Amino acid sequence: MVFRQIYEEGLAQMSYFLGCPATGEALVVDPRRDVDVYLELAESLGLRIAAVAETHIHADYLSGARELAAQTGATLYLSDEGDENWKYRGLEGLPHVLVRDGDEFRVGNIRVRVLHTPGHTPEHITFLVADGAVTEEPLLALTGDFLFVGDVGRPDLLEEAAGMRGTAEPGARAMFRSLRRFLALPDHLQIWPGHGAGSACGKALGALPATTLGYERRHAWWAEYLERGDEEGFVRALLQGQPEAPTYFKEMKRMNRDGMPLLGGVPHPGRLTRFQFQKVLAEGAVLVDTRDKFAFAGGHLPGSFNIPAGKNFSTWAGWLLPYDRPLVLLAEPGRVEALTRALVRIGLDQVAGYIPGLEGYAEGELEQVPQVSAEEAKRMWEAGALVLDVRGRDEYLAGHIPGALNIHAGRVVAHLDRLPKDRPILVHCLGGDRSSTAISALLAHGFRNVYNLTGGIKAWTEHGFPVEKGEALVEA
Amino acid sequence: MVFRQIYEEGLAQMSYFLGCPATGEALVVDPRRDVDVYLELAESLGLRIAAVAETHIHADYLSGARELAAQTGATLYLSDEGDENWKYRGLEGLPHVLVRDGDEFRVGNIRVRVLHTPGHTPEHITFLVADGAVTEEPLLALTGDFLFVGDVGRPDLLEEAAGMRGTAEPGARAMFRSLRRFLALPDHLQIWPGHGAGSACGKALGALPATTLGYERRHAWWAEYLERGDEEGFVRALLQGQPEAPTYFKEMKRMNRDGMPLLGGVPHPGRLTRFQFQKVLAEGAVLVDTRDKFAFAGGHLPGSFNIPAGKNFSTWAGWLLPYDRPLVLLAEPGRVEALTRALVRIGLDQVAGYIPGLEGYAEGELEQVPQVSAEEAKRMWEAGALVLDVRGRDEYLAGHIPGALNIHAGRVVAHLDRLPKDRPILVHCLGGDRSSTAISALLAHGFRNVYNLTGGIKAWTEHGFPVEKGEALVEA
Repeated sequence: MVFRQIYEEGLAQMSYFLGCPATGEALVVDPRRDVDVYLELAESLGLRIAAVAETHIHADYLSGARELAAQTGATLYLSDEGDENWKYRGLEGLPHVLVRDGDEFRVGNIRVRVLHTPGHTPEHITFLVADGAVTEEPLLALTGDFLFVGDVGRPDLLEEAAGMRGTAEPGARAMFRSLRRFLALPDHLQIWPGHGAGSACGKALGALPATTLGYERRHAWWAEYLERGDEEGFVRALLQGQPEAPTYFKEMKRMNRDGMPLLGGVPHPGRLTRFQFQKVLAEGAVLVDTRDKFAFAGGHLPGSFNIPAGKNFSTWAGWLLPYDRPLVLLAEPGRVEALTRALVRIGLDQVAGYIPGLEGYAEGELEQVPQVSAEEAKRMWEAGALVLDVRGRDEYLAGHIPGALNIHAGRVVAHLDRLPKDRPILVHCLGGDRSSTAISALLAHGFRNVYNLTGGIKAWTEHGFPVEKGEALVEA
Repeated sequence: MVFRQIYEEGLAQMSYFLGCPATGEALVVDPRRDVDVYLELAESLGLRIAAVAETHIHADYLSGARELAAQTGATLYLSDEGDENWKYRGLEGLPHVLVRDGDEFRVGNIRVRVLHTPGHTPEHITFLVADGAVTEEPLLALTGDFLFVGDVGRPDLLEEAAGMRGTAEPGARAMFRSLRRFLALPDHLQIWPGHGAGSACGKALGALPATTLGYERRHAWWAEYLERGDEEGFVRALLQGQPEAPTYFKEMKRMNRDGMPLLGGVPHPGRLTRFQFQKVLAEGAVLVDTRDKFAFAGGHLPGSFNIPAGKNFSTWAGWLLPYDRPLVLLAEPGRVEALTRALVRIGLDQVAGYIPGLEGYAEGELEQVPQVSAEEAKRMWEAGALVLDVRGRDEYLAGHIPGALNIHAGRVVAHLDRLPKDRPILVHCLGGDRSSTAISALLAHGFRNVYNLTGGIKAWTEHGFPVEKGEALVEA
């Protein structure tokens, strides 16, 4: 049996490619939307993708399952668990099998048993995989967002991101039961999860690619609760300290359940001439300025969003960019493909083109972001400027500038009404990246009196300026 | 703890990168010689390579341990087990620690315990790795060529490749004892080996990146022998059916023990003008023609070796190319870097340059390889041509053209005296790739009456022509 983990760093997302050399068939589990990576792998291994399976309806990325099935003719294996809210729709025309707990399917000699493991989501399933060429006993489990290395999937995602009130606690209880049942499996079972460190789908994900049930049973944070059957303690611990869930998650859930546009390949946006660029802007396109915070501060086009090209590009794009308007990238030509993929992975397909730089714009056409040092910031703070701390809630609680308002950088746009237009706003994060993104959103929404604390709270504390802990003006 | 497996497809070789984000230190285990992959990983993760360790003195590739230590200042951790033949030499000037069974070392929070696991080689050690941030209990073992997925390292490599008579059986017995001892470890221990499917360091390596001790204990081919304590049966089974060991292995062993030239970076051979090319050829350089078998057959420069660019390039280069002469690559410019790396990985450092094609050569300057169909081959065979089967011994025994001589393609040069110059030699393999390589070696050594059975024994059997099984004129 061939087995490959495919790691997508931006969303810390893992998909899997399993092949049976004896029959030439392959199975892909939890594919991302730019599916060429699987097609190329199949080609290089001389295998045909015959099946595509999904552990659950994902929230943090747009699934490539339908895309891959449409491009290859593979059969989809999707969960039939959960209530009506969690039933896949729009599968007409795609060969598919809806599976439930206890079902089995084979891809060549690869035997897959379906286990219903609700908790992260109600319809979540785990695949127990056996290499039939060796034995019928499973050697590994593809656990999706049920079991991670050192953690479990968060059950509060939809309550948090989509306002589905009252789903977090029942989810946590379901997770407890799923774990209890799963622990009956043997210690030597390999666990290959759907996410690694950095994903917003859990809070303490480990950086290892895989783990074993025996190790998790002994050393995961949840092990002690399961050991003593302490469901209440487990639920409390699980729901505590989960990171902010990006608002685009809600949209992903809906599209992954109901269907999304098929791409037929990765889009290649073209370079726009100045006239083309002006035309698409006039038609409502949003300019995504992917340069770093310094370049953005030094001069940018009014109305553009600063989302620097980097590891978290997908996530920040998901937090801030509109799904109903075309996008234009300001990016080095060599980066356009990777950035376009990062957007397509979360369903931001409308990339109208790119421009490589701002040469040719006159000084007066560009806007700057005033940068202030820690000393200047202290003077502004003393003089009554509003301090807007755009870090996560946990970071804020651990220590913030006294009186600072906390709105996560990704949520600034949703809370504009809480911000004053009549006094200076001093924006900061830890080191100045997220604040640049938040400031770009504020500027795009007409705020003018906005300042960036260069160096973030790091610089502030290094100067020994006052910091307080715990709650204050919190709006995470 | 950060953990990455780095897979090098050409030699099916796996190295490991382990990092401790808390202290910013990293450990690399069993690095390959083009070490930039580790430097880039460290850079991207913001870590410093503080330690480099090796499971054993490798035979199939030139170690990058000293290279990486020299470039980073990292401390080397090397085995002090085994007799005088297996002691590392020439380590002066490189910070190093020689370790024995039971020793421990730490890299940040990563705790590494050394286990002596002889069998593949006498000094072989395995690293038990614990993530000290979680627990002191090991979560995984880096088993090198001791334990593979579904297999164990072969103990006969040096007897086979280097003529060290009488080492295979004692090695097999040592392997049995190492396994017995290792099986005392818990089922949930992850096993991350030094090689995957396709390596010549074992015979039945699985295609999965990792396994667990519990799964191997139950399902590996050797499990039953250990279960019933059947050492004799184990030794017999282990020594049976091992693949041919490339002759360059002997050279690798020596260099990996005694030291090799440090590179300081990956070489970038330049493109040679026609005059430069002629000059290096006149000075004794060997032309390595990396085009496919068809292009080579259609026209090649006399004296060149046909080793097509592809997955097994390193291995065939190791089988056939001289270590004491400069090499020139005939390759597409876009492939030169990958090919150079493949050569450097096995210590073929003397790449004098490349030429992109044979344009400009007159018809008469190029040599062809006569291709014969299965029907023509049958007529030649009936008329008394020598059939030279250049496949592996096991393939030959499973079915060959009656009367065929079997010399593995990589060993043809070592057995030229067994080949007639006075009658036609009909060379074949399974499908025509290895035979093209073997023919190029024969032509380079002055043989002229050589024919390639296009389509190999595949075509022969498809025509229903006679095949016999078992021993005959075997010289594997």
